[in-house]
Amino acid sequence: MNTNLAMPQLLSLLLVAAALLASPSAALVQDFCVADLKSADTPAGYPCKSVTTVTVEDFAFAGLGVPGNTTNIIKAAVTPAFVGQFPGFNGLGLSMARLDLALGGVIPLHTHPAASEVLFVAQGTICAGFISSGANKVYLKSLNRGEIMVFPQGLLHFQFNSGKGPALGFVAFSSHNPGLQITDFALFANDLPSEVVEKVTFLDDAQVKKLKGVLGGSG
Amino acid sequence: MNTNLAMPQLLSLLLVAAALLASPSAALVQDFCVADLKSADTPAGYPCKSVTTVTVEDFAFAGLGVPGNTTNIIKAAVTPAFVGQFPGFNGLGLSMARLDLALGGVIPLHTHPAASEVLFVAQGTICAGFISSGANKVYLKSLNRGEIMVFPQGLLHFQFNSGKGPALGFVAFSSHNPGLQITDFALFANDLPSEVVEKVTFLDDAQVKKLKGVLGGSG
Amino acid sequence: MNTNLAMPQLLSLLLVAAALLASPSAALVQDFCVADLKSADTPAGYPCKSVTTVTVEDFAFAGLGVPGNTTNIIKAAVTPAFVGQFPGFNGLGLSMARLDLALGGVIPLHTHPAASEVLFVAQGTICAGFISSGANKVYLKSLNRGEIMVFPQGLLHFQFNSGKGPALGFVAFSSHNPGLQITDFALFANDLPSEVVEKVTFLDDAQVKKLKGVLGGSG
Amino acid sequence: MNTNLAMPQLLSLLLVAAALLASPSAALVQDFCVADLKSADTPAGYPCKSVTTVTVEDFAFAGLGVPGNTTNIIKAAVTPAFVGQFPGFNGLGLSMARLDLALGGVIPLHTHPAASEVLFVAQGTICAGFISSGANKVYLKSLNRGEIMVFPQGLLHFQFNSGKGPALGFVAFSSHNPGLQITDFALFANDLPSEVVEKVTFLDDAQVKKLKGVLGGSG
Amino acid sequence: MNTNLAMPQLLSLLLVAAALLASPSAALVQDFCVADLKSADTPAGYPCKSVTTVTVEDFAFAGLGVPGNTTNIIKAAVTPAFVGQFPGFNGLGLSMARLDLALGGVIPLHTHPAASEVLFVAQGTICAGFISSGANKVYLKSLNRGEIMVFPQGLLHFQFNSGKGPALGFVAFSSHNPGLQITDFALFANDLPSEVVEKVTFLDDAQVKKLKGVLGGSG
Amino acid sequence: MNTNLAMPQLLSLLLVAAALLASPSAALVQDFCVADLKSADTPAGYPCKSVTTVTVEDFAFAGLGVPGNTTNIIKAAVTPAFVGQFPGFNGLGLSMARLDLALGGVIPLHTHPAASEVLFVAQGTICAGFISSGANKVYLKSLNRGEIMVFPQGLLHFQFNSGKGPALGFVAFSSHNPGLQITDFALFANDLPSEVVEKVTFLDDAQVKKLKGVLGGSG
Repeated sequence: MNTNLAMPQLLSLLLVAAALLASPSAALVQDFCVADLKSADTPAGYPCKSVTTVTVEDFAFAGLGVPGNTTNIIKAAVTPAFVGQFPGFNGLGLSMARLDLALGGVIPLHTHPAASEVLFVAQGTICAGFISSGANKVYLKSLNRGEIMVFPQGLLHFQFNSGKGPALGFVAFSSHNPGLQITDFALFANDLPSEVVEKVTFLDDAQVKKLKGVLGGSG
Repeated sequence: MNTNLAMPQLLSLLLVAAALLASPSAALVQDFCVADLKSADTPAGYPCKSVTTVTVEDFAFAGLGVPGNTTNIIKAAVTPAFVGQFPGFNGLGLSMARLDLALGGVIPLHTHPAASEVLFVAQGTICAGFISSGANKVYLKSLNRGEIMVFPQGLLHFQFNSGKGPALGFVAFSSHNPGLQITDFALFANDLPSEVVEKVTFLDDAQVKKLKGVLGGSG
Repeated sequence: MNTNLAMPQLLSLLLVAAALLASPSAALVQDFCVADLKSADTPAGYPCKSVTTVTVEDFAFAGLGVPGNTTNIIKAAVTPAFVGQFPGFNGLGLSMARLDLALGGVIPLHTHPAASEVLFVAQGTICAGFISSGANKVYLKSLNRGEIMVFPQGLLHFQFNSGKGPALGFVAFSSHNPGLQITDFALFANDLPSEVVEKVTFLDDAQVKKLKGVLGGSG
Repeated sequence: MNTNLAMPQLLSLLLVAAALLASPSAALVQDFCVADLKSADTPAGYPCKSVTTVTVEDFAFAGLGVPGNTTNIIKAAVTPAFVGQFPGFNGLGLSMARLDLALGGVIPLHTHPAASEVLFVAQGTICAGFISSGANKVYLKSLNRGEIMVFPQGLLHFQFNSGKGPALGFVAFSSHNPGLQITDFALFANDLPSEVVEKVTFLDDAQVKKLKGVLGGSG
Repeated sequence: MNTNLAMPQLLSLLLVAAALLASPSAALVQDFCVADLKSADTPAGYPCKSVTTVTVEDFAFAGLGVPGNTTNIIKAAVTPAFVGQFPGFNGLGLSMARLDLALGGVIPLHTHPAASEVLFVAQGTICAGFISSGANKVYLKSLNRGEIMVFPQGLLHFQFNSGKGPALGFVAFSSHNPGLQITDFALFANDLPSEVVEKVTFLDDAQVKKLKGVLGGSG
Repeated sequence: MNTNLAMPQLLSLLLVAAALLASPSAALVQDFCVADLKSADTPAGYPCKSVTTVTVEDFAFAGLGVPGNTTNIIKAAVTPAFVGQFPGFNGLGLSMARLDLALGGVIPLHTHPAASEVLFVAQGTICAGFISSGANKVYLKSLNRGEIMVFPQGLLHFQFNSGKGPALGFVAFSSHNPGLQITDFALFANDLPSEVVEKVTFLDDAQVKKLKGVLGGSG
């Protein structure tokens, strides 16, 4: 059986395609939903930018190619590509970030309230760990270039440079907006009263006030 | 029009019902999935106990009616009704816990990695707070009997008795297995090396060792 | 190894924190989404109120502390804290309600189309039951103070005071908007023609017209 | 540029394909999960039948082509193709059923606790309706051949033949296991005590006992 | 025990019902969310049309009752009832389409990126198939009237008339917006350069240009 | 107020911690669910390996650090880290793969039926594109080192080396098991009859038979 198309038949196929392309409903199909960050967010993500104004530039992002500035006390930098920086991720269940770690650099203890994370080591050696909630068990490992490690959703984790030179990592998240709660900033970089911090952490008063002083907290 | 049933007609309706009740597929319909805790868990919850052995006792739980023992250093007790204690919650997106807070009692800083929480104050006065991840903003409030407060998923929060007598709270979660990660236990109740704790939290060495000593941590 | 921070180093940490806090993207991170009830709802919930106007009062609600008026024919009252009453629940997969049951009080047969429910008995004795869909099996139990019972999503259930004094219950749901469909109101409190009610329920014409009369239905 | 493949190049492409096909991980990829009904169900559906034993027959089902027997009191028949009858639906978020309605036939008032439904009228005229939960508003319409109507998840609805000959409908659901709770069967086809039925429905004692008698209920 | 209602009692029940119906929150309960197609879409679907303007016509659709025009080269027509055509499906996890297949008609190779599909054969004989991703295994079957077949989410599939007369099918999807990506249109009906098409498909240049010509593609 | 802990108090805190750690329910809390690949899969993922046997090695994977062999006709290699290769991803909504592209290398046209994808270019220049389903619009871009691009779920896409040396990319997916359907393999690497391929793709018979020959297809 020969099902190949002769030209006259093909012309009528063209009409079918044209009809479908011209359908008013075609514009309503949602393959993606680039965030319109100027509209109010919803529990499922931002409203979509009009598809007629979407271009390939909405799906590409160059910000992770730029090294972060690590001349700071943690000798590290986190460069996010969450939905706020890269609206193309909206509703697609993914986001990324770049981790620059100078010699001795540290990404302090933190959680992502809304996502799991995978870390890919692109350069150097990174020691990473997370702690389980049930048994408070520590899962700690030194990762070399090319290795990956996964951090389950919401669990406390950290990364630090355990090598002899700078380290570089890239992380991906299972949400367009994973959140980032750094424990120290949550405790010491705001107006949560020292007395309350001490009560709920058992830290000494001097320790709390020292870190509040550093991180700009009051109270 | 009279659609009421005369007895002869009703008898044939009985046959319909009987036929449906006897259908081999009826036993396969899943209205609920009481956890069979002896089987391996899955990402969506435990396999279901056979429906033929399920009784109303699988859907009821008395454990939250028993006050927890608050004669301890935090002067507080958390009594969970998660899927592990109450298998009837499996797959239904809910669980509960009871909070007993003696005078001065504290539920230390913690997160639930997999659920949002609502607290209902049944007795006394409870001061509760959570910290947002983006702006590290503190949301803190003293709640009296009958008041409720919601804690968004994965965010650090705490509760303590801010009244002049014992307090009692009940919390509900948006998952059958919300998890409970107490920050102090994650840091100080295991073998995470003190050096690592200090590196990722900026806490002083003496502070870390003091709390590790208390909470049974090593390293 | 001493990782504790000296003051000059701490000052530079402050700069890191300040930089992160000042980031334009920080305001875009969604830890929560307090409902803006004046905007149109979406399938996932209401658009979020601007985070800059959110305060702790958006996460707390006092309405469940107020007894409902039970001087009515069902001798009972349901006080909801759904997203419509408590916008802080929006998108968090939780809501609550208060059940006041005077002596002899009844919460009539109903379903929640969009959520499972857990009942906590705070006072008195409440008899509660649900019926499975596959086998029409009844799960019925009298619950005392401190006991909880779970009602799987969408199934017909009811509660009534089975004690010798007033009873009080609190329920939590696995959705910010569980819905509440009272079977009697669905059948008898609207303009569904009596003939149709009879046809689809096999109830007698007199019975239908009696209850339509009571509940304000027409047709 | 000519990218067409010459035969020697094509042979090496064959090797690539062969390598991929022989990969031990290929067998682990889950495109589908045909239910192994002999294993215990889970909250997300049944464990998968081994992919090596799956054939096209697992994805096809002939049962909806057979008219149901309508010689009964409701003059109607429901033929389900849920996961219990058609294991190929497992985990795919779909199921179907066939509705045969003889002249005067009725599908009594019911809900599907776990799914929305769409009805397609294949023959005759079917009057269908549902009732909203918030306002108890009735949405009622007579549908002719070729028309469809959607019934939102969990809401009470019904269908009956409103034409002058037999009617035929097909329904699809948004779950592999939608459940089917017929209100009359839930109330009158089990051992729920008459006293309880009356208390939670306000139906008269005689009415309850009449229908319990018909539907085989006791108590 | 007699729980039947006497008239004076019933009048007070009416007051309860009236109070509930008049509650300002009643209008906020979301049983459904008919799409307001003029508002911007979101990742979870369109914002809801105001419930006060919703009628039963929003839940019914007659478009699938009209045969599609099959006088074209594929001798087939697809008539969609996605959310863009039938806003009542919004957020309910369902949509439908009608397939008209004249003698020799073909629905070309395609995927639905966001949904699984079930096909019901209403008339004639339709040969349908899909290909698994892991093992590239073909699942192919000729379906007669009354038979159904399920196509797992995202997999390549097709349908063609394998009978001796016209065929008619109806399909349901597990999403209100399943998408429809016809492989030929994706490759040949746009400005994707021929060189790129050839590079990523291994098709010959002449073949690509022939089909680009037919389908209106450029480059 | 001084809330710091004195040693006697701390000892009783230790008892609290010990009690919690010894709780039989602690072992039931699910922070993660490392796949037990020997058990049958479920729609939500594999059953969990016993937590008592889980170590940090279950959360780390070195396979992506090894360059794939690109001495083949596509001059490219895909090295997956899906749940089948890296069981630690199970249930966490993430997976990864490594793309090695020699000079002229191509990842042929394909879809991932169950996930969105983000590509990170680690070395060289990669031209990537996807085609929308509604309008068949092409989104095509040449990406340099450090750039990322997102490919929405289920849409046809491809990548090829558009630089002057080797290229390296890493991709992350929004599912532990995204699937990979290469269009050419689906059409030409199995026993789908040539006649059917031609009918559903409009490809010429000679073209189909040429590619079937190359890719090992029969029929």
